[in-house]
Amino acid sequence: MIRFECDYTEGAHERILKRLLETNDEQTPGYGVDDHCEKARAYIKEACDSPNADVHFLVGGTQTNTTVISSILRPHQGVVAAVSGHVAVHETGAIEATGHKILTLPSGDGKIRAEQVQDLYDAHWNDAAPEHSVQPGMVYISQPTENGTIYSKSELEALSRVCRECGLPLFIDGARLGYGLVAEDSDVSLADIAKLCDVFYIGGTKIGALMGEAVVILNGTLKKDFRYMIKQKGGLLAKGRMLGIQFETLFEDGLYVEISKHAIDMAMLLQNGLSEQGFSFQYRSTTNQQFPILPDRILKALSEKYTYSFWEKVDDAHSAVRFCTSWATKKENVELLIQDIKALR
Amino acid sequence: MIRFECDYTEGAHERILKRLLETNDEQTPGYGVDDHCEKARAYIKEACDSPNADVHFLVGGTQTNTTVISSILRPHQGVVAAVSGHVAVHETGAIEATGHKILTLPSGDGKIRAEQVQDLYDAHWNDAAPEHSVQPGMVYISQPTENGTIYSKSELEALSRVCRECGLPLFIDGARLGYGLVAEDSDVSLADIAKLCDVFYIGGTKIGALMGEAVVILNGTLKKDFRYMIKQKGGLLAKGRMLGIQFETLFEDGLYVEISKHAIDMAMLLQNGLSEQGFSFQYRSTTNQQFPILPDRILKALSEKYTYSFWEKVDDAHSAVRFCTSWATKKENVELLIQDIKALR
Amino acid sequence: MIRFECDYTEGAHERILKRLLETNDEQTPGYGVDDHCEKARAYIKEACDSPNADVHFLVGGTQTNTTVISSILRPHQGVVAAVSGHVAVHETGAIEATGHKILTLPSGDGKIRAEQVQDLYDAHWNDAAPEHSVQPGMVYISQPTENGTIYSKSELEALSRVCRECGLPLFIDGARLGYGLVAEDSDVSLADIAKLCDVFYIGGTKIGALMGEAVVILNGTLKKDFRYMIKQKGGLLAKGRMLGIQFETLFEDGLYVEISKHAIDMAMLLQNGLSEQGFSFQYRSTTNQQFPILPDRILKALSEKYTYSFWEKVDDAHSAVRFCTSWATKKENVELLIQDIKALR
Amino acid sequence: MIRFECDYTEGAHERILKRLLETNDEQTPGYGVDDHCEKARAYIKEACDSPNADVHFLVGGTQTNTTVISSILRPHQGVVAAVSGHVAVHETGAIEATGHKILTLPSGDGKIRAEQVQDLYDAHWNDAAPEHSVQPGMVYISQPTENGTIYSKSELEALSRVCRECGLPLFIDGARLGYGLVAEDSDVSLADIAKLCDVFYIGGTKIGALMGEAVVILNGTLKKDFRYMIKQKGGLLAKGRMLGIQFETLFEDGLYVEISKHAIDMAMLLQNGLSEQGFSFQYRSTTNQQFPILPDRILKALSEKYTYSFWEKVDDAHSAVRFCTSWATKKENVELLIQDIKALR
Repeated sequence: MIRFECDYTEGAHERILKRLLETNDEQTPGYGVDDHCEKARAYIKEACDSPNADVHFLVGGTQTNTTVISSILRPHQGVVAAVSGHVAVHETGAIEATGHKILTLPSGDGKIRAEQVQDLYDAHWNDAAPEHSVQPGMVYISQPTENGTIYSKSELEALSRVCRECGLPLFIDGARLGYGLVAEDSDVSLADIAKLCDVFYIGGTKIGALMGEAVVILNGTLKKDFRYMIKQKGGLLAKGRMLGIQFETLFEDGLYVEISKHAIDMAMLLQNGLSEQGFSFQYRSTTNQQFPILPDRILKALSEKYTYSFWEKVDDAHSAVRFCTSWATKKENVELLIQDIKALR
Repeated sequence: MIRFECDYTEGAHERILKRLLETNDEQTPGYGVDDHCEKARAYIKEACDSPNADVHFLVGGTQTNTTVISSILRPHQGVVAAVSGHVAVHETGAIEATGHKILTLPSGDGKIRAEQVQDLYDAHWNDAAPEHSVQPGMVYISQPTENGTIYSKSELEALSRVCRECGLPLFIDGARLGYGLVAEDSDVSLADIAKLCDVFYIGGTKIGALMGEAVVILNGTLKKDFRYMIKQKGGLLAKGRMLGIQFETLFEDGLYVEISKHAIDMAMLLQNGLSEQGFSFQYRSTTNQQFPILPDRILKALSEKYTYSFWEKVDDAHSAVRFCTSWATKKENVELLIQDIKALR
Repeated sequence: MIRFECDYTEGAHERILKRLLETNDEQTPGYGVDDHCEKARAYIKEACDSPNADVHFLVGGTQTNTTVISSILRPHQGVVAAVSGHVAVHETGAIEATGHKILTLPSGDGKIRAEQVQDLYDAHWNDAAPEHSVQPGMVYISQPTENGTIYSKSELEALSRVCRECGLPLFIDGARLGYGLVAEDSDVSLADIAKLCDVFYIGGTKIGALMGEAVVILNGTLKKDFRYMIKQKGGLLAKGRMLGIQFETLFEDGLYVEISKHAIDMAMLLQNGLSEQGFSFQYRSTTNQQFPILPDRILKALSEKYTYSFWEKVDDAHSAVRFCTSWATKKENVELLIQDIKALR
Repeated sequence: MIRFECDYTEGAHERILKRLLETNDEQTPGYGVDDHCEKARAYIKEACDSPNADVHFLVGGTQTNTTVISSILRPHQGVVAAVSGHVAVHETGAIEATGHKILTLPSGDGKIRAEQVQDLYDAHWNDAAPEHSVQPGMVYISQPTENGTIYSKSELEALSRVCRECGLPLFIDGARLGYGLVAEDSDVSLADIAKLCDVFYIGGTKIGALMGEAVVILNGTLKKDFRYMIKQKGGLLAKGRMLGIQFETLFEDGLYVEISKHAIDMAMLLQNGLSEQGFSFQYRSTTNQQFPILPDRILKALSEKYTYSFWEKVDDAHSAVRFCTSWATKKENVELLIQDIKALR
């Protein structure tokens, strides 16, 4: 079986595993205060052009979203997100389990607009009795989104401006951030991200690491006591060095960006291969998730040899599906997939 | 610096790292349903003599305790634990954060007795208005305890009996389970554990793995929907294979027990070395945590070269401290420590 | 100012206040186990034709919804409700604060359909990885709804059937239940309600009482330990008799139904008065909440003398507003309102 | 049966019921913004000599404690309280249900000392890894305590000083505050309370009202959005006037203090009557709860005619029990009780 159903089907980048072996006998203190974590922090702060940022390493995405969001909100506040946001649909109510409602905004492409946030904010505060409903307390977006789309710099600036005017911290879920940074049409750098939001994270799990997400807190008022929150939410890894070593490797000389680019190359190869065959796509994704609309007949045949994610029925005979590439995707597999689809037409 | 402050100062057992390298290019599905996880499950069920158990892999201890406990209790119920239990003191309120009180029982050695559980249960139900206080809903113990002590088989049987009579599921935190199983005075096997409790976990983080805890659910009524709970609490690792491969390696041919024994050998070496010098111990620990009472003068001098955990002041000039050994402890370091202490007397 | 903005603008039915005075010197035990509560329970069970029901008295609606819902769901489950349901919009995230997501269904009239519940249930269980999303755990509806509409008996039967087939307890919020029971087009009795759902409540606050909601639990598996839940959620009134005496008075000889009818008469008087003037309504409400669409100019003028609730803008010059009648509404006030609107046309 | 088991066995002070009747037909807005609430607020602020305080009315004690505490703490923080504090033992885990641990301090008489708070604070912050345990976030005390004892002014000043130095808001549970204010040995006024703490409440349920507690927030940073918290926790009564009218009546001309004094007179009558017979008391209570130690034989006989609360076994033949007086206690009943005990000796 050749797997395209997600971007975490392989282990880790080989350089990471080798580094783990090399450092295996070192003795370090636990819980993320070792030298590897410190070096990784320094590299990340430099990459973000944010010397005053706080950088923390957590294990997974749901955990990271839960920890960040619950550390920011007061009990009567909720987090604003796209109706298709990961926190809204694919985290088994992890945010609600910490007591907070997700205030969803409609979205066709996974993005939300500055105007939507402003309108929701105004609607709340113009209500005659706002205390009967959940107060918007922060905004959550993903870059790239669940649909593979990316925010442009001007879109992020507009969101950032509204958030700051409304006093709503802006949190960017970067589980696939690398893929967003290097997309061909991206005009957003890591430093831009750091400048425009209050807190974000750099995903390792889907880009080269065994696991791990690096939270970068820019807003000083959100920094306080964050390690307590990580511990309480189960994210303070005893052998914190495992995360430090991985991010050290990914950020010491640009490996993170380099391997992200490979995923995008593979995604574009696939996109072009299918476009040329006349297939259309559910979303205009320029990142590593591609959502072609294919005949159910072809999909059925493909499923004997390939894995992909079913996305949604488009009509009686067609479905949108998701193919993911990653840092580890082999070019020959993409080419084979394109050929096989062609042969099935 | 030679580190004895905890049992997670090194990376992983070399065989695990090699296995990660060997399997790195394999493509697997995510979230713990891959073949490595399945094999690891089979090995563990065999080791526990529990073919019908459900086995799940989580990342860390706090996360595991939180997930298991919150999956069992109804909102008005609490978990009974020793006042010194890990959930009661060192998890930043993770259990309370899921809504549940910890009903603590006094304990001098980290263990709780069957009679204490019975008495607490009776006191609750004999109250004229029990609904004004938290209902005991389950019992949590650790094997070994936070003080390095272990439950004997008869103690576990008594606890198990009371728990079953009272309808209180018994949960055993096995973050250091291996060290408890192979302690010289232990008469409890993995199969005994599995027979006497409703759910327990086998700690990997402190015994050879990079990270990971294997939850074993015996009681059928506790099995339902447990994967939802793991996901919600942030423990469903995307690259679940990372956990599967590690437990596969630890359990396919007895590695887990073998390396646990090494830690105990090192602990006994240290205990004997200090006993011979006339030092006493805060607890009668036969496992990998040793709590000698040493002069503060000696401790101060040691701290230039060794790390250890401060435990508590014993008198004006002495303190109890904790030295941990592990699967990775080097014999020469223990010997050096003993010598250095001797030289400082 | 003549108030129509809600149905709790006056005190209590005079008979209730007199009964409070008469019984004031009686000494009773606290927390709802006194004779008045017992009598009220008996009356209500008889009215519901449900001798085996458990009846509990709580103080307010949000508290009641929170207590019932959080007592039923496991942590990974959510409650299915109309997007306009009270729990979804007007309880400041009280349900989420107990850890549970509200799984909303679209609704134009405040009602949800059996098919919607079935579809949502099927969508969850047909997902390839259901554990990544919140599991539907129960269904919440209101009778009447927030829009004044009522479920017919056949609609309730269909919902009940789906809920039972799917194993989803059905909870009916009856904050305004009396008004729903006596609406002209209602074919649903209290006994029907009790037969078709698993738990519901009979609202007192909006129908004659100072405050108070009577929860009726029909499903035996939901009865266990419910008093603990009431206590924990702050609803176990010390002077529980205050609730018992009120419901005793409302149910001993049909007062609840009698005064509900008055509210409906007043609502129909208003509806007819406005219909005759050619005004249309936002919802087809046959209960005590009426949602006429009126010119903003008239509304502005009315607001000097009357209170009402703004509902939503309909176009540039018109808005839908809510006028509530209640057991206490004076006929002359409704007539005056109709005349004043006529004069303003 | 003559009831002494608690201080809420009767209805309300007659003047309150009459006022409810007089005002019954008035139309008021809901949720505590009516004129009666406003007047009650003004009276209370004057009585507290705190013109800038925020005053809110809630329904019951558990609800009030839960609302105040959860509005103050961040997720990783806990509330410091006596091990016998109401929140720690008699609220069915309501505080934990909002996610927070109660950090208990030992107490023989229901009070905690400034030094204890300081020590707990220091112990937390001197820990090498404080983020592994719950951070103390506020302090909760009751005046009077659960044991009927009261804090002196100097004790409160010391507590207040430590709390302010440590940045821990001090919250005083005044469910029985009136009885504490008028105790013979009390040197603490309402204004002192308001000056020394950050937030407290004045109990109505146990002192003349049908139900109701008035929260007084002094510390400006704790005022923000408190109404959201009340609503979310189910305490925002629709007919908020019911609470306003009651507190208006209790505070417009000193009724609250006057009826509190009666309870104390009755308690002292009972205390003297039993002391003269040579009985001792479990606690030195000068308030309305008295804890005599009586022979079990006498207690058994008394229970045919009187209710009281069992407190604890003292020895094989004696128990401490609680007799409560209140604003409504009849002198002849206390005298009869004393006589009956005398006759039973």
